[in-house]
Amino acid sequence: MSVLLNFAMFPTDKGPSVSEYVSRVIEMIDKSGITYKLTAMGTIIETDTLPEALAIVQKAYDILGPVSERIYSTINLDIRKNKSGRLVQKVQSVEQKIGKVNT
Amino acid sequence: MSVLLNFAMFPTDKGPSVSEYVSRVIEMIDKSGITYKLTAMGTIIETDTLPEALAIVQKAYDILGPVSERIYSTINLDIRKNKSGRLVQKVQSVEQKIGKVNT
Amino acid sequence: MSVLLNFAMFPTDKGPSVSEYVSRVIEMIDKSGITYKLTAMGTIIETDTLPEALAIVQKAYDILGPVSERIYSTINLDIRKNKSGRLVQKVQSVEQKIGKVNT
Amino acid sequence: MSVLLNFAMFPTDKGPSVSEYVSRVIEMIDKSGITYKLTAMGTIIETDTLPEALAIVQKAYDILGPVSERIYSTINLDIRKNKSGRLVQKVQSVEQKIGKVNT
Repeated sequence: MSVLLNFAMFPTDKGPSVSEYVSRVIEMIDKSGITYKLTAMGTIIETDTLPEALAIVQKAYDILGPVSERIYSTINLDIRKNKSGRLVQKVQSVEQKIGKVNT
Repeated sequence: MSVLLNFAMFPTDKGPSVSEYVSRVIEMIDKSGITYKLTAMGTIIETDTLPEALAIVQKAYDILGPVSERIYSTINLDIRKNKSGRLVQKVQSVEQKIGKVNT
Repeated sequence: MSVLLNFAMFPTDKGPSVSEYVSRVIEMIDKSGITYKLTAMGTIIETDTLPEALAIVQKAYDILGPVSERIYSTINLDIRKNKSGRLVQKVQSVEQKIGKVNT
Repeated sequence: MSVLLNFAMFPTDKGPSVSEYVSRVIEMIDKSGITYKLTAMGTIIETDTLPEALAIVQKAYDILGPVSERIYSTINLDIRKNKSGRLVQKVQSVEQKIGKVNT
């Protein structure tokens, strides 16, 4: 099974710049050893099970919650059976279809 | 603490009508005793903690996963300290400000 | 055609309470005459075409943009042909299936 | 101004594999000359104004609508004044903070 979870989580009481807070979450993900991809709009992780993916959301909150009055998060899940490695393969598949590599 | 979690979860391999599947998830939420509000675009639940809210997402998947090849889900979280009853209050607060009751 | 658009839009540089700003957006939607439903997590509008729905998103930004350094928005679209009145019907359909009316 | 719009749009009546349809949308974006980044969960575009970004959403629907009974889309917007080039800079900024380059 391949669980792709795309998420952004940020405090809404810290003014317009929140990269300091976001960085702590990314650092946690990076140290966790999980497969992930950082984007300009959030982080995409790929896990074998849904509990593993939701645990990352919980850990992100455990970092931001203690320092914030209010937290907002947006999450998308794409869960597919009998697949793996989709974090890389989905992009490659589309790039092949359109005959272009976007870097 | 007030955790508002708005989510939709549906199989993408069942054709255009998925209300049969969605209904099973709502039934689970209804029986759970959790505070919730059904909307045309998903379900909003309110819990005291994030683990309780994420457990509902997991249970929704436990219902849809076994009957689906592919599941898509979109989730939004609004977590605020020192608040409660926001499922009702947030709507009332805005309605009061605009001087209208939307039914 | 039935276009359901669920959206939240808010400034992220105004501290934890943004209902004053959100209210201005809801007031615009209310005065527009469009079919809508206010929820604890955003506003769901129903239109006959996608341009009408996206115009509301633009108008919301036209209200919040001038007073904010940074704006965040999350939007979900469910577009279905040969249907109408889904803002009410989708909820009723599920409630009938689970044999309960959620108020 | 920097408008980051992250979106996924897909038919829900075409079975589990929709990359053929998604590819047509990416091809349109690629040919439009707009700055974009393809991810495993959608496409992130960056424009100078919101109308330009929403026009891409409309064009994506113009491609998928005629061949689908039902379309689902999820969109996130991060709009910030007095900034540009954030599609690349936001990722670099976080990578620098955590002292790592994620490839």
